Amino acid sequence: MTGGRFMAMDSPLEGSEIAVFGAPFDATSSFRPGSRFAPGEMRSHFAALEEYSPALGRSLRDRRICDMGDLAIAPSDVRGMQAAVAGAVNAVMDAGSRPLMIGGEHLVTLPAVRAIMDRMSGRRTGLGRMSGDPPDAGLAVVHLDAHSDLRDEYMGCRESHACVMRRVWEVVGDGRIRQFGIRSGDASEYVWNVGNRHVFQTADGLGGFGEMAEALGGVPVYLSIDLDVFDPSALPGTGTPEPGGITYNDFRAALPHLRRLNVAAADIVELSPHHDPSGASTILACKVLRELLLCM
Amino acid sequence: MTGGRFMAMDSPLEGSEIAVFGAPFDATSSFRPGSRFAPGEMRSHFAALEEYSPALGRSLRDRRICDMGDLAIAPSDVRGMQAAVAGAVNAVMDAGSRPLMIGGEHLVTLPAVRAIMDRMSGRRTGLGRMSGDPPDAGLAVVHLDAHSDLRDEYMGCRESHACVMRRVWEVVGDGRIRQFGIRSGDASEYVWNVGNRHVFQTADGLGGFGEMAEALGGVPVYLSIDLDVFDPSALPGTGTPEPGGITYNDFRAALPHLRRLNVAAADIVELSPHHDPSGASTILACKVLRELLLCM
Amino acid sequence: MTGGRFMAMDSPLEGSEIAVFGAPFDATSSFRPGSRFAPGEMRSHFAALEEYSPALGRSLRDRRICDMGDLAIAPSDVRGMQAAVAGAVNAVMDAGSRPLMIGGEHLVTLPAVRAIMDRMSGRRTGLGRMSGDPPDAGLAVVHLDAHSDLRDEYMGCRESHACVMRRVWEVVGDGRIRQFGIRSGDASEYVWNVGNRHVFQTADGLGGFGEMAEALGGVPVYLSIDLDVFDPSALPGTGTPEPGGITYNDFRAALPHLRRLNVAAADIVELSPHHDPSGASTILACKVLRELLLCM
Amino acid sequence: MTGGRFMAMDSPLEGSEIAVFGAPFDATSSFRPGSRFAPGEMRSHFAALEEYSPALGRSLRDRRICDMGDLAIAPSDVRGMQAAVAGAVNAVMDAGSRPLMIGGEHLVTLPAVRAIMDRMSGRRTGLGRMSGDPPDAGLAVVHLDAHSDLRDEYMGCRESHACVMRRVWEVVGDGRIRQFGIRSGDASEYVWNVGNRHVFQTADGLGGFGEMAEALGGVPVYLSIDLDVFDPSALPGTGTPEPGGITYNDFRAALPHLRRLNVAAADIVELSPHHDPSGASTILACKVLRELLLCM
Amino acid sequence: MTGGRFMAMDSPLEGSEIAVFGAPFDATSSFRPGSRFAPGEMRSHFAALEEYSPALGRSLRDRRICDMGDLAIAPSDVRGMQAAVAGAVNAVMDAGSRPLMIGGEHLVTLPAVRAIMDRMSGRRTGLGRMSGDPPDAGLAVVHLDAHSDLRDEYMGCRESHACVMRRVWEVVGDGRIRQFGIRSGDASEYVWNVGNRHVFQTADGLGGFGEMAEALGGVPVYLSIDLDVFDPSALPGTGTPEPGGITYNDFRAALPHLRRLNVAAADIVELSPHHDPSGASTILACKVLRELLLCM
Amino acid sequence: MTGGRFMAMDSPLEGSEIAVFGAPFDATSSFRPGSRFAPGEMRSHFAALEEYSPALGRSLRDRRICDMGDLAIAPSDVRGMQAAVAGAVNAVMDAGSRPLMIGGEHLVTLPAVRAIMDRMSGRRTGLGRMSGDPPDAGLAVVHLDAHSDLRDEYMGCRESHACVMRRVWEVVGDGRIRQFGIRSGDASEYVWNVGNRHVFQTADGLGGFGEMAEALGGVPVYLSIDLDVFDPSALPGTGTPEPGGITYNDFRAALPHLRRLNVAAADIVELSPHHDPSGASTILACKVLRELLLCM
Repeated sequence: MTGGRFMAMDSPLEGSEIAVFGAPFDATSSFRPGSRFAPGEMRSHFAALEEYSPALGRSLRDRRICDMGDLAIAPSDVRGMQAAVAGAVNAVMDAGSRPLMIGGEHLVTLPAVRAIMDRMSGRRTGLGRMSGDPPDAGLAVVHLDAHSDLRDEYMGCRESHACVMRRVWEVVGDGRIRQFGIRSGDASEYVWNVGNRHVFQTADGLGGFGEMAEALGGVPVYLSIDLDVFDPSALPGTGTPEPGGITYNDFRAALPHLRRLNVAAADIVELSPHHDPSGASTILACKVLRELLLCM
Repeated sequence: MTGGRFMAMDSPLEGSEIAVFGAPFDATSSFRPGSRFAPGEMRSHFAALEEYSPALGRSLRDRRICDMGDLAIAPSDVRGMQAAVAGAVNAVMDAGSRPLMIGGEHLVTLPAVRAIMDRMSGRRTGLGRMSGDPPDAGLAVVHLDAHSDLRDEYMGCRESHACVMRRVWEVVGDGRIRQFGIRSGDASEYVWNVGNRHVFQTADGLGGFGEMAEALGGVPVYLSIDLDVFDPSALPGTGTPEPGGITYNDFRAALPHLRRLNVAAADIVELSPHHDPSGASTILACKVLRELLLCM
Repeated sequence: MTGGRFMAMDSPLEGSEIAVFGAPFDATSSFRPGSRFAPGEMRSHFAALEEYSPALGRSLRDRRICDMGDLAIAPSDVRGMQAAVAGAVNAVMDAGSRPLMIGGEHLVTLPAVRAIMDRMSGRRTGLGRMSGDPPDAGLAVVHLDAHSDLRDEYMGCRESHACVMRRVWEVVGDGRIRQFGIRSGDASEYVWNVGNRHVFQTADGLGGFGEMAEALGGVPVYLSIDLDVFDPSALPGTGTPEPGGITYNDFRAALPHLRRLNVAAADIVELSPHHDPSGASTILACKVLRELLLCM
Repeated sequence: MTGGRFMAMDSPLEGSEIAVFGAPFDATSSFRPGSRFAPGEMRSHFAALEEYSPALGRSLRDRRICDMGDLAIAPSDVRGMQAAVAGAVNAVMDAGSRPLMIGGEHLVTLPAVRAIMDRMSGRRTGLGRMSGDPPDAGLAVVHLDAHSDLRDEYMGCRESHACVMRRVWEVVGDGRIRQFGIRSGDASEYVWNVGNRHVFQTADGLGGFGEMAEALGGVPVYLSIDLDVFDPSALPGTGTPEPGGITYNDFRAALPHLRRLNVAAADIVELSPHHDPSGASTILACKVLRELLLCM
Repeated sequence: MTGGRFMAMDSPLEGSEIAVFGAPFDATSSFRPGSRFAPGEMRSHFAALEEYSPALGRSLRDRRICDMGDLAIAPSDVRGMQAAVAGAVNAVMDAGSRPLMIGGEHLVTLPAVRAIMDRMSGRRTGLGRMSGDPPDAGLAVVHLDAHSDLRDEYMGCRESHACVMRRVWEVVGDGRIRQFGIRSGDASEYVWNVGNRHVFQTADGLGGFGEMAEALGGVPVYLSIDLDVFDPSALPGTGTPEPGGITYNDFRAALPHLRRLNVAAADIVELSPHHDPSGASTILACKVLRELLLCM
Repeated sequence: MTGGRFMAMDSPLEGSEIAVFGAPFDATSSFRPGSRFAPGEMRSHFAALEEYSPALGRSLRDRRICDMGDLAIAPSDVRGMQAAVAGAVNAVMDAGSRPLMIGGEHLVTLPAVRAIMDRMSGRRTGLGRMSGDPPDAGLAVVHLDAHSDLRDEYMGCRESHACVMRRVWEVVGDGRIRQFGIRSGDASEYVWNVGNRHVFQTADGLGGFGEMAEALGGVPVYLSIDLDVFDPSALPGTGTPEPGGITYNDFRAALPHLRRLNVAAADIVELSPHHDPSGASTILACKVLRELLLCM
């Protein structure tokens, strides 16, 4: 008898390979809020899938995965959310596991990247680098999204899902972020990044994903999947759907490349279940999660 | 950090006053199936309510309640469902707690009543009466519903949600069942029960509920709430909505009477969340659950 | 094996007591069109109800009812709709049966009333009064609705659902129309009818329905039920929901009075199933239909 | 040719009697966000109603009402929202008109009350009391809601829709707030207000509303209508539906009393259109708005 | 005047080329039940399509098709369903026509295949082979699906939609089943069928469909289309949507090959209309049905 | 503060390059009406998009666009609609701007084309050709749609969305209409146009669009986009969805060719927002509108 845990994710944190947690926060959503409900809905829909992935020839039963549940976050508390996410990421890495965060909106990525960079640089108060920390070689950020999220501010706010990759860039620096699927942005974002001078970006879906994966080699990667990278036909249930995205089969074709990445941490964000009356978006999110868990 | 348990129901089974479990089964639904999703959706919506009930002046925090999760039941396995429900009821009562089952459709009531009657009569294999068992005075069944569920068979099936109270009557006998809110039935059901010769029944909502509660005194009661007793305006999300039911305020007015009942076990059945696009039905079901827990 | 006929309405037209037909037309809907889908959806939901009515102690199986199917009407063809409805009403009455039309929007009432008035006055070309026709005493129109529908024109159109009772009044004359449940109208409608000089009207739900029924005695009645007479909590699925209406229990309480009416013909209009995602509106419409059939 | 303004609200601000504006903000919503979409959806549904109210015998055409459109508010900017609302309230009152704000969630009430209190006490920088300001007698707050909103903090936040009336109480003081329809709260809220020592509160719907209105006499009133005061059967489309509320007919019965109030400013908050798939909640909100405009 | 029959399918059974019937059964659905509503909803949506197919250059008007309506099946009666389907298949074939069954869930395929195999082997009680029966050469099963349905049991049940092709394999034997579009299964299913030793299977959508059709030549084929072979973007309204499926244009491209098959019987299963709020899934199912009828 | 105008379309008509107006009319819809709500819903969803188009490298801020609001049209008034549309087209062209009409259903195209042809031929009463009028070279009609709309009549009506291109052909003559994406029609339409003798038509999505654009050179074009040219996976929210259409990426690939057209006037029709519960169809329609505005 169990209720309310991701199917087949029943390892304790200590000893787990991957630890999943939800970050139910959507305060900065600029169009349709509601991504706070994503972790709960994904847990209840996950059982529609098999534990086994034919595409990867692996089963969740072969992995040691911990479902830590959801973080407690006050609805409008941008600062509190960042503390909670950073705390969870550190707890997972202290236990020698790897975090996979389920948003919530995209701003949740920022404290996760910051926490990992702090660990890599030994900046955590009272701590040197620990054995569970990623190596020195720096952190690459691989980012799938419809929107570049490179605005400097949105309606006067700098900590917004619309600015999250600009903030991440301030943390990781030039040349560390690779963006795929981007097809929307403010003119200012394109001007700032003209010639990809700060961030590598392609408008051509997952084109070049294999070459990127090969080039990265063993560099530790933070993988952030904003689900609106998918076309709204495949995933209407998101805050700001943007026509022109990838299909699930495009994503599946990238799995062998994704497998080659050295994923230190990951997130899946921006599912908005209340805008998904057929449930198909939530199921797609679940399948992305399963395949990602089996690739990591 | 927690995910997927009813808010404030975190006692262990041993030592709990009440144990809640889900019975996600809907195979015999005659119109719209889907009540299997009720326990999960109720858990995710329960947090929309406070733990405190102003109507009762009590809080869930003051009770020791165990959420046992959901039973594992194969979709079409009528027999397996009955074994699983009986097993859960016995486990709860063996632990000295009282069961509160969340359906699923109404047929789940049958094995629960049978299990309790078996305990009361000492029929459980290898067991005498145990300390957690209800006393000898017999079991009364208090039944809120739109439909009398007294058919002898439905399309050739005798074990169907449409026949469940006829089957229960076979177990508990004449004069033990009190039905409220009934406003629909086959002509044969009315003929069989003419003059309330087998079952007490009223078509007038919860009219007479107080007198009934007083008359029952301390007799152990199995309370079965088919949520379609509510008018479809209040609860559209059910398998067979039937116009003409009670409002939530009617239910609230009956709470003082409900509190006087000696409820040995209870169930709340027939919520169908996929037919409740606004979520209001699920929230009403949650409020009924909270008030019932605080009354028991 | 059957598909797509109202449950238990399988009599041939000749010899039937009542003949049901659909008029799937919604061209003049001023807010949300879609009532064209009402007859089809009502057929598919009707099986959620029993054939037997406890409130009336009667079963559909005891009546001889013919389901004639739906009229073929081009979407925007106001004139064609009127010819089709008049043709169907005449066909039913020629067969000695009574018509019960399911809209569609409210304008479908106009040609039905006209056809009956023509028969009563012997105006049908080439025909004297026939044996199936209502007697000389004139036709009373009993009208349940949220809106008085007494505008002389709506945006320049005189044949509109918003003007239908004004047009009916032109046919039946002063003092023949009784309106119940009215709670919305243009100022001009109230001025025109000040002191109920043309049409009897009450804003108090079904208040006075019993007295009205008694006063009418055996006068033949055309009964028109615009389902938006119900409060949107009970029936959200209609073109122009108007808060403040009756509940189903209010309607049920009026059934004994309704039974006393000499209903020569009736309609149930303005269900809009695409605005009824829970299905509860359609089921309420079906129950109104069942009780009306058993009262006629 | 017009698009996107409330029907019949086309007066310029100067010279208007009432000025309507939207405050599309929902960052502190604790369960289901989405009330930011309320002003837009209400504008598009308003045309389903007539301009004339039979209940009041008045038409919007007889009033001079200005629709100022919506405030520009960044999604998570609690401070910016407060500045924008205060600015709009002041602009309206400077023009000699009265503000009617459409939320958004309930926190928008706080800056509106603060702005008015500042004007009444002459605290506005560089300004004495102006001719458009309410008189000295103090401000009464009349509050319709399901939730008392009297928490001191919610998950660590003090500026939350769940705490708004506690904050308002800090501004207006003991004995100035009258709450109707309250049926939910944390135990701490009831303890704090035991014996109604700070805030007058009734759990009995709109019971006593008439006496309250009489007692207030000509005192300037801030009227705040949280639409979840209505039962979820009437209004499912809100952030935290709470069964047991009032019907529209209860509200209509209070209109004569509401007319007697000296309403200096008002708001209608917490409609969440994305949780209202039938549209009925939005239409009820529109009717509340129309009647309120005609009462002020 | 007609209501409730598939447009243009009005031939009597005797003399028809194809006979369509519905099998409204969904008791073994493992995730979202509701496919029982598919035949009814498809009838009501079918009129959105033309009778003529430009892709095939043919019209339904040129075929003699009988709509037999729906089978009467008790909701949980697995055995009764099998008897009813077998009876219908035999009735159709006795009349010299070919059955096209509309599910319902996938288990309905099993009794249909069994009935045909019984006819081919002369096993029907009291009957030799009849003139309407398929020839001796054996029966090939062509199966489009997302799931292989080759489990030996599902939660203890062997007669489940999740096991249907394993059961069919027991009837038709090795090498007779061709599966297309398969992208999900339990690990045990892949182990059992490793090297396609029992069943031919491809994960590559409809890749190889043309070659398969050519290879089959004139062998009689049972064609089973589980609509979840389509990607959830095209068909969200199914019990267990599985991302990664075919598009409608993929299906259209296979029509010339499908035309070459000697289809003795067919089914279209697993549409779940209540999970299809836009109606697009039902319309796609209707178009598949039309093209299949014109290909057979 | 603004409410209810398309973002960034705030130029006055005089001096604008393009003028957008809504034609909320859906009386002849043959399956699901509701396109009258398209202009309003598109305005409220448009803000989900950026003003800048990366695909085109242009921003709406660089164009002078006027949003004229919606035409006032009585629901069933086919004639009145035509007068209103013609009036608006003439007003726009008199002001030296170009009209972009948002339907409503497809019949709104007819009066727009007629008005332009009248101007080109100097037929407007009392007027010669004006400076804003298209040149003499004739008008080409480029038509994207799932349905050819070439019927001579539909259920007896000649002015229907199902006949609109036949009517347009009567105005512009042989060889002036180019249709793309067509995949549905009555047999009679295909017979009438066999060999493309009247109208150029391709069933292959946007295949050949580039060649067509090149061939047209500078000829003035009326561009009519019936949104059901898109596959229902991308755009379920339309009156008569037809599987087998184009994706958004197909449309995007045609933008460079679209840019080469000399578009004198355009329309976007047949979005039905009430059949689009996820909102994704409306957002796709908005993106088509943005790109079209930036191409014109």
